[in-house]
Amino acid sequence: MNYPGGIKKQKEAKIINYGNRGMSLEEDINLSNEYYREIDKAYIYKKPTPIKITKVDYPSRDKAVIKEAFFTIPSTTDYNGLYKGKYIDFEAKETKSTTSFALRNIHPHQINHIKNIYNHKGIVFLIIRFSNLGETYLLTAETFLNYLNESSKKSIPIEFFRKHAYLLKNGYNPRINYLTIVDQLIGGI
Amino acid sequence: MNYPGGIKKQKEAKIINYGNRGMSLEEDINLSNEYYREIDKAYIYKKPTPIKITKVDYPSRDKAVIKEAFFTIPSTTDYNGLYKGKYIDFEAKETKSTTSFALRNIHPHQINHIKNIYNHKGIVFLIIRFSNLGETYLLTAETFLNYLNESSKKSIPIEFFRKHAYLLKNGYNPRINYLTIVDQLIGGI
Repeated sequence: MNYPGGIKKQKEAKIINYGNRGMSLEEDINLSNEYYREIDKAYIYKKPTPIKITKVDYPSRDKAVIKEAFFTIPSTTDYNGLYKGKYIDFEAKETKSTTSFALRNIHPHQINHIKNIYNHKGIVFLIIRFSNLGETYLLTAETFLNYLNESSKKSIPIEFFRKHAYLLKNGYNPRINYLTIVDQLIGGI
Repeated sequence: MNYPGGIKKQKEAKIINYGNRGMSLEEDINLSNEYYREIDKAYIYKKPTPIKITKVDYPSRDKAVIKEAFFTIPSTTDYNGLYKGKYIDFEAKETKSTTSFALRNIHPHQINHIKNIYNHKGIVFLIIRFSNLGETYLLTAETFLNYLNESSKKSIPIEFFRKHAYLLKNGYNPRINYLTIVDQLIGGI
């Protein structure tokens, strides 16, 4: 459960100057998606954090304050939407490791979801950032699922990403132009 | 802001027996989507309720309790996903009125979102239930947006639904077989 950490990160990100390279992957993707919407290119959103609400107060008639709630495990990936008439779906994760990406970062529910979307012809992938290396990769569902089938390792080594994933460059607007890679994936279908 | 009400409704729905016809539209749709996933037909999910978290407690290292949060206005519709390789997107609303559906129930952000998805070739629609009439309709984005353009009324009369929308029958599994209508829409593209 790394949601609490995720929320902390969001708060910190707001203090960081937008010109700074130290922004979180989530912030980079959210800003990229905002930009894509502004230029009417794609409509991809981050899903709200799933929570279970257990206590709500009504200090006045049309106001509600959640007084107790818990983070719950997501059954899908964090991002989905529409691009060029296609269903787009992905999960984004950041790791501080400089050697590998630990598979425990992707919940079993999410792996199932990725399989289902892949089987039903959605465009589905992972975006993984090695923050201490300054490298961000787009790993297609196909390559990811093949790796899970063929390897018994509990992590994916950085060398695997360097060989089999697409390196995403950081820019200004969009911060991460991942749709250029999606264009290649769509073209290749 | 009718989210607090929505949550109340969810709680009540849990007490109601599944065989009962008194289930909320949201519960009917959630169960239909679960069924569609079970039979590997479609992967359509309700997005979590969007909230802004302002206070989190950590009673222990790996446990987090949200102590203060607020409901926020959604920028998209509630449901989206993948069916037959197509991007599916819709909003569902229930009204107690027996004469019309008030347009204030759909936020301006959501109307914009519906336009964008329609323009980018997603399958987008509304599911509206007149609970006191026992009638549930699928209204396509095209018909809905045309109505907004051509009418200055603040509501859509029931007669408009009876003429221009698709009546959805209630069943056991799925509770609402809205994908049969989506099949017609896909076929008609």
